[in-house]
Amino acid sequence: MRVNAYAAPAAGEPLAPTTIERRAVGPNDVLIEIEFAGICHSDIHTVNGDWGPQPFPVVPGHEIVGRVTEVGSGVSRHAVGDRVGVGCMVGSCGECTNCRNGDEQYCVKGMIGTYAATDRDGTSTQGGYSTHVVVDADYVLSVPDGIDPAAAAPLLCAGITTYAPLRKWQAGPGTKVAVVGLGGLGHMAVKIAHALGAEVTVLSQSLKKQEDGLRLGADDYFATSDPDTFEALAGRFDLIVNTVSAKIDLDAYLGLLAVDGTLVNVGAPAEPLDVNVFSLIGGRRSFAGSMIGGIALTQEMLDFCAEHHIGAEVEVIRADQVNEAYERVLASDVRYRFVIDASTLS
Amino acid sequence: MRVNAYAAPAAGEPLAPTTIERRAVGPNDVLIEIEFAGICHSDIHTVNGDWGPQPFPVVPGHEIVGRVTEVGSGVSRHAVGDRVGVGCMVGSCGECTNCRNGDEQYCVKGMIGTYAATDRDGTSTQGGYSTHVVVDADYVLSVPDGIDPAAAAPLLCAGITTYAPLRKWQAGPGTKVAVVGLGGLGHMAVKIAHALGAEVTVLSQSLKKQEDGLRLGADDYFATSDPDTFEALAGRFDLIVNTVSAKIDLDAYLGLLAVDGTLVNVGAPAEPLDVNVFSLIGGRRSFAGSMIGGIALTQEMLDFCAEHHIGAEVEVIRADQVNEAYERVLASDVRYRFVIDASTLS
Repeated sequence: MRVNAYAAPAAGEPLAPTTIERRAVGPNDVLIEIEFAGICHSDIHTVNGDWGPQPFPVVPGHEIVGRVTEVGSGVSRHAVGDRVGVGCMVGSCGECTNCRNGDEQYCVKGMIGTYAATDRDGTSTQGGYSTHVVVDADYVLSVPDGIDPAAAAPLLCAGITTYAPLRKWQAGPGTKVAVVGLGGLGHMAVKIAHALGAEVTVLSQSLKKQEDGLRLGADDYFATSDPDTFEALAGRFDLIVNTVSAKIDLDAYLGLLAVDGTLVNVGAPAEPLDVNVFSLIGGRRSFAGSMIGGIALTQEMLDFCAEHHIGAEVEVIRADQVNEAYERVLASDVRYRFVIDASTLS
Repeated sequence: MRVNAYAAPAAGEPLAPTTIERRAVGPNDVLIEIEFAGICHSDIHTVNGDWGPQPFPVVPGHEIVGRVTEVGSGVSRHAVGDRVGVGCMVGSCGECTNCRNGDEQYCVKGMIGTYAATDRDGTSTQGGYSTHVVVDADYVLSVPDGIDPAAAAPLLCAGITTYAPLRKWQAGPGTKVAVVGLGGLGHMAVKIAHALGAEVTVLSQSLKKQEDGLRLGADDYFATSDPDTFEALAGRFDLIVNTVSAKIDLDAYLGLLAVDGTLVNVGAPAEPLDVNVFSLIGGRRSFAGSMIGGIALTQEMLDFCAEHHIGAEVEVIRADQVNEAYERVLASDVRYRFVIDASTLS
């Protein structure tokens, strides 16, 4: 099946319209007609070659929402007409300890990424900037009614990436959570942490987005460019979710944690960070990392978001605006996620 | 009350016999006739000036065991004749959140260290290399019968320092714990983790102490100088307790953690460590720090050790051997803790 898509032909080159082949629907496969595909910063890193060589041409996109149009004979989980989603992975071994524990993203043999990865049949996976995709049913999520499909798309990466650490480190009533950075990931972290019942503080470079932050559910908003912030908030938080991938002064942020507090990075700067171990020892603190989440947890997140009427704040664009959107993401000029309307690819 | 002691007269100078003043026993105080005082690496760092200027002369020693010889009118917790212990702290505010949570070592106003700290009355605290000490009863632990008093002394620092993270990160049946370094702290970590029911692996630079490690309760023993170790043990441990204060290749050790695993430092190198955040994100791993433990937990540890017949492996020395003992600690030539027999001070 030949379908329309937008692909990066080579590292650092603008994306351009093309066609790609989707495999025939196998017994355990689902064919999805894509409605919306979010633009994640990872898409940009990948096609720019920031993360090493890629199997170009690459069709990015791992925040996919659409309708099932065909299912394989062995699929019972999804039916034609269902609204479904696909996130950052489309496969894993299913047999290792991590897969069996529902942490398919940490598959010992390596999860199969939604794009620019080697699929089971040896071909390169191609992502959601496309009209259709064929995915193993076990990696297809149900998108509940009640979430706008465009707003649901970013949940598949930005949503689960922030939901997973908030759940793991038990954000909830009585806990104080700080979110560093109010971008695509940060705005989801604020909404979800608030819905979980935590007291939420945004730590952003400036107060430019303060009004937004408070509207999205934050109780407090501080500028990290103001050194007083680090004094005023010393020892305050149980959990800090750092959504900023740039290098930060880790010790300053660790000083904001209460005893037993955790600072968890959901992005990773390319260069190593320095940690003064005294910052950890002086409060039994932890510095942690978390990467997306397993399939069952992703479903839980979607159900939670539907129940709490949470979606991403999105700016829906045409496929031919994707290169411009990339520029704007790099300039932090989006509130808070671009989503491609896949009908503009037809 | 004027008592005999061994003190460092100035930074880097050998310790020498002296006399110091102990305060009169107040209503909430306990006078302890010291039997044994362990030598902790911190003692050496402090008197060498590695940790900044100190109020010399300094009498080190925060692993103290002795007998109560007098109690204040308001003391009900301890009685004359009781065997008791004093660890790294002799006071804290008692009112802040951390104190109220039993984490006096993280007192917001700062705990009062057993030596080289400013006491409530403005004098400098003086530690356990002495015949007697007067301590607020709330910071005096009961040493249960059944632990040899010399072997009990190091529990007050080395014991609680390792017990606290093992408990916090739930070492027990079904968990795999690695202990980095088999010194004063490491040998306690092995004994306690084994008694808690965990599967214990020692990671030591060489296999020199392998026989000891296995005798103390380790199930496995690997040399970190062998690069194969890091391949063979990749993804294996739920918890790694790092007792080595020198700079280590953190990313290599983080790679030994299973998903959700924690590497906890109980010592801190003077220089910051580099962390590649991908090492954390790639397994939802944590890098943490832990410092001694609160009073209630220290008592729990002593009771646990008595129940499981755990003491430190000690070499008992005379007070006049202390400078030689320091040299040997620095040369890692002790299995596994020097303990001063305080009767040799009289």
